Amino acid sequence: MRILGIDPGVATIGFGLVEADRGQARMVTYGAITTPAGLPLSRRLYQIGADMEDLIGQLRPDVISIEELFFNTNITTGIAVAHGRGVLLYTAEKCGVPLFEYTPSQVKLAVTGYGKAEKRQVMDMVRRLLKLQKVPRPDDAADALALALCHARSFTSRLPREAGVPETI
Amino acid sequence: MRILGIDPGVATIGFGLVEADRGQARMVTYGAITTPAGLPLSRRLYQIGADMEDLIGQLRPDVISIEELFFNTNITTGIAVAHGRGVLLYTAEKCGVPLFEYTPSQVKLAVTGYGKAEKRQVMDMVRRLLKLQKVPRPDDAADALALALCHARSFTSRLPREAGVPETI
Repeated sequence: MRILGIDPGVATIGFGLVEADRGQARMVTYGAITTPAGLPLSRRLYQIGADMEDLIGQLRPDVISIEELFFNTNITTGIAVAHGRGVLLYTAEKCGVPLFEYTPSQVKLAVTGYGKAEKRQVMDMVRRLLKLQKVPRPDDAADALALALCHARSFTSRLPREAGVPETI
Repeated sequence: MRILGIDPGVATIGFGLVEADRGQARMVTYGAITTPAGLPLSRRLYQIGADMEDLIGQLRPDVISIEELFFNTNITTGIAVAHGRGVLLYTAEKCGVPLFEYTPSQVKLAVTGYGKAEKRQVMDMVRRLLKLQKVPRPDDAADALALALCHARSFTSRLPREAGVPETI
């Protein structure tokens, strides 16, 4: 199963593709989509959608694992990230790829065994689990690989929650 | 000039098309795109993008006037609206329609002459300025017409701010 992890954003969207098979996970590729800060938000969002559509076409993931949004820090940044995440969910749906979403705690728990692990510990476990020489850069790409690993390690043990479980808005 | 006002959201996206010519504004059409609460968020976002693309294709606006997001109330609702708004900005850009955004205060000021006008006053001025028998329904559509009127009444007197003025995210 090819799992594409996505770390949502507007300036930098991390991605990481993992091939998971019988409990083993292998890194296929990783990287980041970036958009220039000087462009209007609408153009950045358009570029994100177009680049992600190309990427899904090239990588052909079976599922996408994307981070849920949490806002305990900067609300302005959170709103911008939500704009970008909206376009990413739209694009996944347009491409017909099933979506799963995980909270930062779920990712930490699945990857390190501890839901309150530090970022450094998560990064190091990503490197070890995928047998990489170094922690992938940028951080957004490493986060995306962690999301892909989280799905790989979660989906056999419990029913994952699909993105956008019916909710009242 | 054909101005399409859009009131962003996920459950209900109001729209209103106004034809503005030498200070006069005429209502062409209005309505709302709605998505069922029972669908996953990604499917609702996909439907919003697809429906808005069809609508732009039918209505052929010269510009889009969309509300800026403000969050002084419910952050969860705000995050959902930001997802929907991201898809709307993406779609406007995809269709090549120039975007302008206005705060609620700017809309109130442009439509009623008072930046802190009550909703009821704004609705009534929309009805009067567009020579309608009744205030349009749903409220989201009336809000969208107010956004279109705001652009119609603003763009000759000042340089409107384009959506997504360069920002650091």
